[in-house]
This record gives sequence, C-alpha cells and structure tokens, in this order.
Amino acid sequence: MEILTGGLENVPGYVFSAVECGIKYQNRLDLSLIASEKPCHAAGVFTTNRVYAAPVRLCRERTGLPVRGILVNATNANACTGDEGYANARRLTRETARLLGAPEDSILMASTGVIGVQLPAEKMQKSLPALVEAASPSKGGMIAKAIMTTDTFAKEYAVRFDCDGAAYIVAGTAKGAGMMAPNMATLLAFLLTDMPLAKNDLDAAFRRCTSSAALASFEEALLAILKKLAELLVRDGEGATKFVRVVVKRAADEADARLAARAVAQSLLVKTALFGNDPNWGRIACAAGYSGARIDEKRLSILIDDAMLLSNGTPVPFERAEIQKRLAKKDLEVTVDLGMGDAGAECLTTDLSYDYVKINAEYTT
Amino acid sequence: MEILTGGLENVPGYVFSAVECGIKYQNRLDLSLIASEKPCHAAGVFTTNRVYAAPVRLCRERTGLPVRGILVNATNANACTGDEGYANARRLTRETARLLGAPEDSILMASTGVIGVQLPAEKMQKSLPALVEAASPSKGGMIAKAIMTTDTFAKEYAVRFDCDGAAYIVAGTAKGAGMMAPNMATLLAFLLTDMPLAKNDLDAAFRRCTSSAALASFEEALLAILKKLAELLVRDGEGATKFVRVVVKRAADEADARLAARAVAQSLLVKTALFGNDPNWGRIACAAGYSGARIDEKRLSILIDDAMLLSNGTPVPFERAEIQKRLAKKDLEVTVDLGMGDAGAECLTTDLSYDYVKINAEYTT
Repeated sequence: MEILTGGLENVPGYVFSAVECGIKYQNRLDLSLIASEKPCHAAGVFTTNRVYAAPVRLCRERTGLPVRGILVNATNANACTGDEGYANARRLTRETARLLGAPEDSILMASTGVIGVQLPAEKMQKSLPALVEAASPSKGGMIAKAIMTTDTFAKEYAVRFDCDGAAYIVAGTAKGAGMMAPNMATLLAFLLTDMPLAKNDLDAAFRRCTSSAALASFEEALLAILKKLAELLVRDGEGATKFVRVVVKRAADEADARLAARAVAQSLLVKTALFGNDPNWGRIACAAGYSGARIDEKRLSILIDDAMLLSNGTPVPFERAEIQKRLAKKDLEVTVDLGMGDAGAECLTTDLSYDYVKINAEYTT
Repeated sequence: MEILTGGLENVPGYVFSAVECGIKYQNRLDLSLIASEKPCHAAGVFTTNRVYAAPVRLCRERTGLPVRGILVNATNANACTGDEGYANARRLTRETARLLGAPEDSILMASTGVIGVQLPAEKMQKSLPALVEAASPSKGGMIAKAIMTTDTFAKEYAVRFDCDGAAYIVAGTAKGAGMMAPNMATLLAFLLTDMPLAKNDLDAAFRRCTSSAALASFEEALLAILKKLAELLVRDGEGATKFVRVVVKRAADEADARLAARAVAQSLLVKTALFGNDPNWGRIACAAGYSGARIDEKRLSILIDDAMLLSNGTPVPFERAEIQKRLAKKDLEVTVDLGMGDAGAECLTTDLSYDYVKINAEYTT
C-alpha cells in the first residue's frame, strides 16, 4: 500500500467542481459536486440521531441505487427544515441530474452548516449549470476545501493498493472538526475508489471498516483512509492545541477497554488538565473508575508517553518540570494499564481550551 | 414546613468545629468536625466510581454502626493513597473518638481535594485536640465554609417540619461546585436531623429521596433540603454565569424524559451557546435527538422561558435582540416539548464559560 499526495483527484473515473454560490457568506466555496463518469455502487453510514437533516433522508433513500454524483453544500445543514427542506434537496439534485444527463435519483446530497434555516434553493439552482460545467478530474482538492466549516485545514488522503496483480486507488476527504462525539451529526466524509466492487462487497467492507479491523487489500486501504481521516478530524478539533492518543491496555475484555478509553478521552477534567500541562493522573483514574470498566485500583497504572505517574495504584514521584515539558508537546499518548486481562483499545482526543468555548459561544445561528 | 435561616446549627443535639490545620494551604479552615451528643443512626450514599478514596471505604464500613461524629478535611481527598491512606483515616478517626470519649468505629471521615497525595497525618492529629475542644452547637456555619474547595459560596439549608404534633428540624450543607456529573466523586453533603428515626426508616427515606419523590413529613423536609443543596451546587458550577433548568415535557415515558433532559443539560454545544446568549435551538434539538429518547421531529417544540423557538418541528421567526436579552438573564428555563406522551423530567445545568476552562486547566495537582 502506497500513500499518495493529494486526495480525491487520484481516483480515475470521477470529476470534481466547486463554486462560490453565496449560500450564507460571500467569497467562499460553498457548493460542490463529485460526479462519476459511470453509475457507481455506493455505501453509506449515517447519523443515529433521531433528528436528521433532509439530505440524510435523501441519501438513505438513494444509496442503494446506482449513483452518479453527490451535491454538497456548506454553511447550511438543511436540518429541521421540514417538508420544504426535503423538497429543496430533491429539486437541487433533480436539476443536477438533468445537467449531467443522469437519472433523477442517481444524485445524492450532503449539507453542513446552520440548522433550521431553509436553503436559498433558487440561488443554488442558478449556480448548478456553472458548477456542472466546471467539473474536471483534477479538482479533487476543491471538494476538501468547499466542505469545510470550522475546520482550519482541508482533510484528504489517498492510497494505492494492489489486488490480484492490479493497482487500485482509494481516496477520501472529510470535514467536521471535533465537536466532541456528536454521533456523526456534523461529520461529512466522502470516499472514492476505482476498484470494481459488487454492491454487497462494498457494503460489507465499508461497514466492517467503520467498526473494526478488516482483512482484504481493499478493506486494508479503506481502513487506512478512514483512520487517517479520523486522525485529521481530531487533530483539527475546535480550539485543540494537543492531539492525544488514549491507549487502554490489559483490560478484562474489549468492551471494558473501549469504555475506559472513551471515558478518559471524553472527560472534560482530563481535557482541561491536558490543556494546562497538568500531570493530573487522578482525573484519568477517576474517569477510568466511572467508565463502567472493571478496575482494581491496586493494579492500575497510568503513563504520559513513557513516563509512569501511577504504578499498580501507587503514585510515582516525578519531576514536575520534566513532566510539564512532556505535556507541552503537541502530540501525546496517555496509557491506562488496567492490569486485568489482555484486551486493549485506543481513542483519539484533544485537550479543551479557551478557544473551544470561544468558537462555540460566539458562533451565531 | 418552614425554611429557617442558617444551616446545621439549627439542629439540636450536635456540636461543630473547624480549624486551620494547614493541610495544603495556610490560613484557611480545612479540618472540621460534626459531633453528636448521643450515638446516632446514619445513612449514606457513596460514589459508584470503582476508584474511591480511603474515607469512602471507612464510611461504607461504619455507616451501619452507631455514629458519634464525622471528621472532614478539605484540600486533600486521600484518594489513590493505598493502604497508607486508609491507615491514616483510621488513625485520625481513632484519635477523634478517643478525644470525644466515643467508640473507635463511631467516627466517620470525609476528605476532598487533591488526589494521590498522602494526608499530613501527624500534623492533622496534632490539630485534633483543639478541634474537639472548640466544638460548639452554634458553629454549624463553619462546617459549610471549611468543606469548600472551588465553591465560591457556602451552601447550607434548614427547614422545620411537623410530625404527629411535634416540630423537628432537618438541615444540610454540601460542597462540590459543578465538575459536571462526576457521579458524586467530588461531592460532599452532610444532613442532620433531631427527629428520632429507626435505622431502617432512615435508610429507606434517604435512599428514596436520592432518587424520587417522597411522601411523609420527614421525607418531604429531607427532599426539600436535597433539592435546595442540588440547586446551590449547580448555581455554583465552576465558571458558570447562568443557572438553567432544562424541562422535558410530554415524553413517551419517564425514562425518555430523563434521557432527553440529561442529554440537553450535558451538551457542551448547548452550554457554550447559552454562555454566548445564542438562541441555538438546533443544538438543543440535536442533543434531544441523540439522547435515545423517542422523538418525532414534527412534534418537537423548543422554548427559552416562554418564547417558542421551534413549534412542532417548524422554526418560529423571532426577534434576535429580544431573545438575546432573555438569554442574558442569570436564570433560564429551556423547555423541550416532545409531544409524544405525558411524562416529564427536569435537569439542572449551567452554561460553559471560559472560566470553566481556566479553573480546571490552571488547577495544579
């Protein structure tokens, strides 16, 4: 498997386009299109939120059909917009399909941005001819830019892999900087491949990758993209100053390992301590303790990178200045060794800074 | 039921004391004692965290026995301190018992503050004679002060109630300003009454009050104290600028109502929006949506105080300046009307401000 520079434009058979439609703001790419030369199989996972946007409904209805493209807009999520919002999604994809000479239901849609405001459908429809006209195989990078909201950098990744002697490519882009586990509600990610796959195989591979490890060459490449995009999303977490890998080792079982890793990664007390360069292993122990994972305090060890702070329940004396220097790095690993079994799990997180509050308090609906 | 001024000192039969021992800081009350003139029945609920402090172990062992007092220290939690920490708790309560002429196992202990540091047991033991010597029925207010950590005001409450023609008093104090639902791990609360109660009745009343409504006069008074202390704790949430009551109405059942209320109250996106005076009902809908409660978007309504922002899934146009003025108040109510049934629930919360990050990032272990 070989990592390529750039993103979506590495995958043959697709064209890309983005324009400044002015949906909410002027002078920013906010409307974009990924189109395939031929009908494709598609697979998707969607938010589990009971309140979901009109384009999510549209995608759920159409992902099982042959797909020719995805129309994407930023700055307006088309969520909580009722029947009118759904009608707008249908109208805009219908017009896109017409311009592409494709079946009406072969265009998916994805929207991100403000909630509860109707799309300016008229204005968007007027932008569609220019959008379709400008589409080109080289413009993959524009998609990564056009889908950004509070993201501070564009996220894309591409790999080449071999399968039965032939080389194929998988590439992806994503947006949705760390709003802290909102169950995918603010996340958009688009992955493309030129490998010919049966619909069922694609579904299976994709769903496995979004939950656990995969084996075959395609799944391996797909997993690499998903992992990298997940890492990039966390690295660009709102207001984050540090990227932190929480590693749980020697849990009684995998479920315990995941519970503990997630509790530590999501603890506001842990995240603020990391922001303050405070080696506050007590907060880490506390989060592991309430996670539901089986824990015996006397077997619990906690490390920041390779510096042991707690060893089998006993605090290890440390040089504060030395540990704070370690904590001041941009990349950290927090290890929680439960000493109960041989299961492990990882969870990526960031610190919580003043800027997280700023970004989310000053954003206005 | 009559609300009294002050707190614990209203209850006959108890004495109180607090001293500046210098456990971690100089010139602050950090060691205190509540003692009863006669042996009492006690009931307690404790953290469910698997990592719990030495004094929690001690209390679990002794709460079922006749109790003569509670020794409380602030600034050091005696947590993650192993066998030495437990031995220190035993040693200090043994000495307190000796000074009071009480059985060794009749003294409980509670500790709050830094984790993973041994108590200065020698120094604390030397303070005990002065602590016991100074005990007086009038010093209840000193307990409320001496147990504070990041609390910005002392929390106490007392009520007088009638039962079978006699008047009794219940009073309480609590500390543990809003570290955001750490499962009681940082919370201390002490309640006293002069009503003679059988041990079993006390356990039953207390456990019912810590989960749902109660009926008898004592339970009613106890519930009033617990509710008020809970409100005071939330009002003093770290960095909080607003006190917010999240009210869920017309849920399909009570479990759904609680799920939705808790999800909205704990959402960082909702809390930061409230700090920013942003009428971001989309974040409220999002939190209710991922809570697990049954929701039909078309029946969902959201109000800030009595201003409707979303009505049966349709956004209600509002005057931004007017709503922001409403949001700028210190006391708010957010109502989520699910329109699915007739169950309701409330959850108290606060906004999330820069000061929450400051307090928790700059606090040093």
